[in-house]
Amino acid sequence: MKAEVIETIREMVGRTQRLRAKGKSIGFVPTMGALHEGHLSLMRRSRAENDVSVISIFVNPTQFAPGEDFEEYPRPIAEDVRKAEEAGVDLIFTTTPEEMYPTGYSTFVEEERVTRPLCGKTRPTFFRGVLTAVLKLCQIVRPHRVYFGEKDFQQCRAVQRMVSDFHLDVEIISCPIVREDDGLALSSRNVYLSASEREEALTIPKSLDLAESLVSEGVRDPAVLVARMTELITEIPSARIDYIETLSADDLSTIERLQGDVLVAVAVWIGKTRLIDNRVLAIG
Amino acid sequence: MKAEVIETIREMVGRTQRLRAKGKSIGFVPTMGALHEGHLSLMRRSRAENDVSVISIFVNPTQFAPGEDFEEYPRPIAEDVRKAEEAGVDLIFTTTPEEMYPTGYSTFVEEERVTRPLCGKTRPTFFRGVLTAVLKLCQIVRPHRVYFGEKDFQQCRAVQRMVSDFHLDVEIISCPIVREDDGLALSSRNVYLSASEREEALTIPKSLDLAESLVSEGVRDPAVLVARMTELITEIPSARIDYIETLSADDLSTIERLQGDVLVAVAVWIGKTRLIDNRVLAIG
Repeated sequence: MKAEVIETIREMVGRTQRLRAKGKSIGFVPTMGALHEGHLSLMRRSRAENDVSVISIFVNPTQFAPGEDFEEYPRPIAEDVRKAEEAGVDLIFTTTPEEMYPTGYSTFVEEERVTRPLCGKTRPTFFRGVLTAVLKLCQIVRPHRVYFGEKDFQQCRAVQRMVSDFHLDVEIISCPIVREDDGLALSSRNVYLSASEREEALTIPKSLDLAESLVSEGVRDPAVLVARMTELITEIPSARIDYIETLSADDLSTIERLQGDVLVAVAVWIGKTRLIDNRVLAIG
Repeated sequence: MKAEVIETIREMVGRTQRLRAKGKSIGFVPTMGALHEGHLSLMRRSRAENDVSVISIFVNPTQFAPGEDFEEYPRPIAEDVRKAEEAGVDLIFTTTPEEMYPTGYSTFVEEERVTRPLCGKTRPTFFRGVLTAVLKLCQIVRPHRVYFGEKDFQQCRAVQRMVSDFHLDVEIISCPIVREDDGLALSSRNVYLSASEREEALTIPKSLDLAESLVSEGVRDPAVLVARMTELITEIPSARIDYIETLSADDLSTIERLQGDVLVAVAVWIGKTRLIDNRVLAIG
């Protein structure tokens, strides 16, 4: 099936207004392109659950800090369009930084709790950029349901918080992490990895396996868990740990004991590539 | 005509969804109550231009800093309902700080240009509170048109900026300042003034008259204008100037010369009461 590419905000707004007026339900997957199976799983679900399935492809400059990989971020647009079509997407919205943030642009969304730990510590303007873009895209696309992958677990929680706090008329659906056969979580940034780095990156999901088995062996002290995971990851020469943390999966608050739904979250630099992964453990 | 008072967010959301589904146009006047003729002029316009006219009465805690008059702010609810009914309002939405900002609430709107000068300097969290509340109320009430008074000129510009930056599907309509016969701009805070302060407060609109006549005499230097206005206001013993500024009325940027549409804006403490006023001069 052919997907239609829409390249201006005005055109997208008009289209979704007409779809809404006809009573069509709209599913939406916001992406930065460089689509992989993780994205495609969201698109298939969006297609299954809605009359019309929309994605956006927009590398959002406000979520990159100076020195991060905004310029290098992969932009294989033709391939992305083909993949999205195969996943049953009806409309592909693309736009430019100039259209999204024109001269004089000055309004941003700040979330002050769930965005503070984890990625919020080393990327202090990241979530502000993400939430601002998601809010804007939701106003443009006017979806009934928006799909996010749980690899970006903190992003899911932050968006859910924004939707609830701002009373946005949209349902946020978070979907399971998709992994390679060997366990590495899919990420558009995996293409940055050399062959040997790709091998070494496997230590990240292995550290989550380790966390899971430690908990099943009865470990309830977060410090013990983090120490053992740190030990495992620092064996890798090219790895530099950004964070390894255990938090309440509900509101990302700190916990003193591994109990209830616990998010084990990891960010590790493998050479020049920063990768994140996580697992939620339901601990009785 | 009887207005209906709606006291929960859920009920208000349901009501406006049904009105929208029926194709009714919705006009909205957000207020903090203590309604005066300025508010009522907005309500009459909302009534004239829309099928259904809604107001909110909510003293929004996030726009008050510690030490400001959140507690003392007048709340004459029965009188407000009667006045709103007389102005043809159909629905009056009231809510509580607990419902608007429940435990765990953490998401805010930050505008970083037009909110920086004037009131943004001495009330640095004020506009963040205003914009957050306006965004939330717009999601709850889902209006087609929202009416603001130009006494809060900077607020009008900040809201317009937010609506444009976030692509909110709503039209912002700003309406002229309503004044007492003697020239004092209407404000819910005028009730704080003693009889003598009320008299002294007249110097504020008089300083704007002075600005206008100086410009018509050919003054084009902002410093001269501000100096003459300062001179006039400091003659009043109970007055303490917060700011007197001339800015571009378009984007509130600083100007070196009085030319084009110029906002002359004043904030003055009269005793313990802070009053604001402004005039836009179209200078050829």
